[in-house]
Amino acid sequence: MKLGRIVPLNKLQKIIEVDIIEGEADSIDGINEIHKVSEGDVTFVDHPKYYQKALNSAATVVIIDKADVPNPLNRTLLLSKDPFSDYVKLVQYFRPFTPMTANVSATATIGEGTILQPNVIVGNHVSIGKNCVIHPNVVIYDHAIIGDHVVIHANTTIGADAFYYKNRGTHFERMVSCGRVIIEDFVEIGANCTIDKGVSGDTIIGAHTKIDNLGHIAHGVVIGKRCLIAAQVGIAGKTTIEDEVTIWGQAGISKDLTIGKKAIISAKSGVSKSLEGGKWYFGIPAREGKKAHRELAALRMLPDFLKQRK
Amino acid sequence: MKLGRIVPLNKLQKIIEVDIIEGEADSIDGINEIHKVSEGDVTFVDHPKYYQKALNSAATVVIIDKADVPNPLNRTLLLSKDPFSDYVKLVQYFRPFTPMTANVSATATIGEGTILQPNVIVGNHVSIGKNCVIHPNVVIYDHAIIGDHVVIHANTTIGADAFYYKNRGTHFERMVSCGRVIIEDFVEIGANCTIDKGVSGDTIIGAHTKIDNLGHIAHGVVIGKRCLIAAQVGIAGKTTIEDEVTIWGQAGISKDLTIGKKAIISAKSGVSKSLEGGKWYFGIPAREGKKAHRELAALRMLPDFLKQRK
Amino acid sequence: MKLGRIVPLNKLQKIIEVDIIEGEADSIDGINEIHKVSEGDVTFVDHPKYYQKALNSAATVVIIDKADVPNPLNRTLLLSKDPFSDYVKLVQYFRPFTPMTANVSATATIGEGTILQPNVIVGNHVSIGKNCVIHPNVVIYDHAIIGDHVVIHANTTIGADAFYYKNRGTHFERMVSCGRVIIEDFVEIGANCTIDKGVSGDTIIGAHTKIDNLGHIAHGVVIGKRCLIAAQVGIAGKTTIEDEVTIWGQAGISKDLTIGKKAIISAKSGVSKSLEGGKWYFGIPAREGKKAHRELAALRMLPDFLKQRK
Repeated sequence: MKLGRIVPLNKLQKIIEVDIIEGEADSIDGINEIHKVSEGDVTFVDHPKYYQKALNSAATVVIIDKADVPNPLNRTLLLSKDPFSDYVKLVQYFRPFTPMTANVSATATIGEGTILQPNVIVGNHVSIGKNCVIHPNVVIYDHAIIGDHVVIHANTTIGADAFYYKNRGTHFERMVSCGRVIIEDFVEIGANCTIDKGVSGDTIIGAHTKIDNLGHIAHGVVIGKRCLIAAQVGIAGKTTIEDEVTIWGQAGISKDLTIGKKAIISAKSGVSKSLEGGKWYFGIPAREGKKAHRELAALRMLPDFLKQRK
Repeated sequence: MKLGRIVPLNKLQKIIEVDIIEGEADSIDGINEIHKVSEGDVTFVDHPKYYQKALNSAATVVIIDKADVPNPLNRTLLLSKDPFSDYVKLVQYFRPFTPMTANVSATATIGEGTILQPNVIVGNHVSIGKNCVIHPNVVIYDHAIIGDHVVIHANTTIGADAFYYKNRGTHFERMVSCGRVIIEDFVEIGANCTIDKGVSGDTIIGAHTKIDNLGHIAHGVVIGKRCLIAAQVGIAGKTTIEDEVTIWGQAGISKDLTIGKKAIISAKSGVSKSLEGGKWYFGIPAREGKKAHRELAALRMLPDFLKQRK
Repeated sequence: MKLGRIVPLNKLQKIIEVDIIEGEADSIDGINEIHKVSEGDVTFVDHPKYYQKALNSAATVVIIDKADVPNPLNRTLLLSKDPFSDYVKLVQYFRPFTPMTANVSATATIGEGTILQPNVIVGNHVSIGKNCVIHPNVVIYDHAIIGDHVVIHANTTIGADAFYYKNRGTHFERMVSCGRVIIEDFVEIGANCTIDKGVSGDTIIGAHTKIDNLGHIAHGVVIGKRCLIAAQVGIAGKTTIEDEVTIWGQAGISKDLTIGKKAIISAKSGVSKSLEGGKWYFGIPAREGKKAHRELAALRMLPDFLKQRK
């Protein structure tokens, strides 16, 4: 999330208790978790395993729980007893939750020719383009951006929070999401789908992509253009689906993967690794369809084969 | 979809640019895609592979992109540069989308003793029978027909559009659905289900059938009487489920299949072929349960078997 | 369900036609199906297979369709031609369905600091604790109890009826649910989930447990504390999930099972048996992950192995 303004570090120090221990930067203009950082951002790191990733990232300022770490790019370090919680505090400060007072927020913008059917909920600062049809009882959380000629069917939820928690032993602490959902032109989304907002970046549904009913698109997923995603498909956090991918019903795709352009994933597949484009995949775990079917054919023969060998 | 009136072909020619090139009929009384045609209908065909199917169907009038095709039944042919788009234009003309102006349309009829809980949306020309309970936030799109003693749980969507697109290379063109959902007497539907309307025919849920939460029933599916369909099941377009079929949780059934009477499909199965009735099925792809379990038992032994052979 | 008062048997006899045939008790204070009975309850039994279970249970009064059965604990027996229907009649009498007249029932209690977003439906006698956020279009059926600091995302349905029917040959007769949903403190539930009420007992989501979008939790399921349940998971009726269990996306768990503490169930698994805690499971049917992966590795080799042996 970019803030749209420059915030000096001493302002941050009024929100969270941190010491500036090194580095030259004296301000930030964005707050992002490590997967989405760019110059000007503050991010956080709280595990030695990720120190180097954070300190070598594009982030200008890093909230960290250890001093005396190699800092080759001279990032500005904010020493914190609990970087995760301090990061969450910043998000909450700069993007506070504002309860709604009407079905359609006065801060939302709705384009010409767009039809909102009854009981549609449009959150704060949502933007909806022209000539869309939003069917009844659709819920669009704050800050979503929806293009032109988009259709969203009834009871779909756009922009719920990321399913992202830090295990504190006695409880889970929620990462507060401040990302957005961006739905490009000519996208159509079925009924009772869920498309979560990004943790700090955007969940993006590319132009002309069509999603059938009861689909789940997790936080930070980026779907390309002209994809077809059949009913009850689930795509886990931060996975990238390139253009013109086809995913058939009830398939599931794990987090942090990339599915190449024009890949075809059969119904009920479970994808646990990134897949090259232009090929057909099947199975749990998904593998090339031809190979998977060869294995299934062999399995058909196995009982008799083993019986003969006894 | 039958129109309930006779429309002369010269009326169609004011809506779409087509030439009448042969045949005797001079009017239509219905608009249907090829899977649902009956006498009096106009349909369309735009691929040589399906010319004969269309020209030998019951349709009286065929929108087609080629002259000089064998036409043994002397169907009336309307020559079009783009039969798909012209067909869609006719659907849109005769069944235009009419935005709602109230939660319950003034054109809907609600039977005696039926309870609509808060925020139920009842579309235009919907008919709901007697003694039903429609729980909160259910959305029923236009033209659905619901029988007596039906229960529909919260947040379910009845009658969203078919997931049916024509790939135009640069984009997908949506088939505009004009079919209905018909829910017969004593059906009960769980929470957060989706039951799509037919493309031009009807999606039918037979009397006394019960569907659990988060089920997906696609366009044109016909489900028989006294079926039990557990949670999170998905049934793809135009599949027929005969009477007294039991489908357990998270199973999926592909499109255009027939599942025979009293078949039992185990949880998580993926059905890719039509299945005979009276038997039990399991697996992805689903096969007879006994066979599937014999294969699983053999697979259990395989690692040790292969190790010994090395 | 406990009634909160003592009801004499002659009161029951005004509601259902039964003869008292033996036993000393002359009143009840609860109505429960056999899985949830405690002292003071009336329950029912209508199949010889379960007579002994019912007559040896803690229930004080049993509606039964046969006299002259061994009754070692001297339970009071009510002879009925149709125990199932008579039991249902009692439930309907003591817990009648009361249509709502407002989005938030006047009989509901909402704690301080709790935010109800637009179009939330809160049923009769629902209790919601402090500092909760209930997002738009959530539906909470009657009698649910929700703790403090709970978050429920949009379009989720809490407390729909159990999917539980008696097959009468010509039709299915619905068991009328009178149980509750209990959601403990700090639970968070994603968008478009369904959590059904118990048949007569409670569906419980333990403190600090987090459930992602499109999850299905059936009637009477008891989930422990600090569990993580990813998107599109389904858990069937009366299964117990102990504390700190992790269930990944699209997994399904059959009814009446127990999943031990700290078990981890991989995505897309289908659990058909109870599982010991502290281990990792995978597959359909789910087995220990290491074993399942050994089998998958063997299956990869099988086609070439069989080819060489031909």
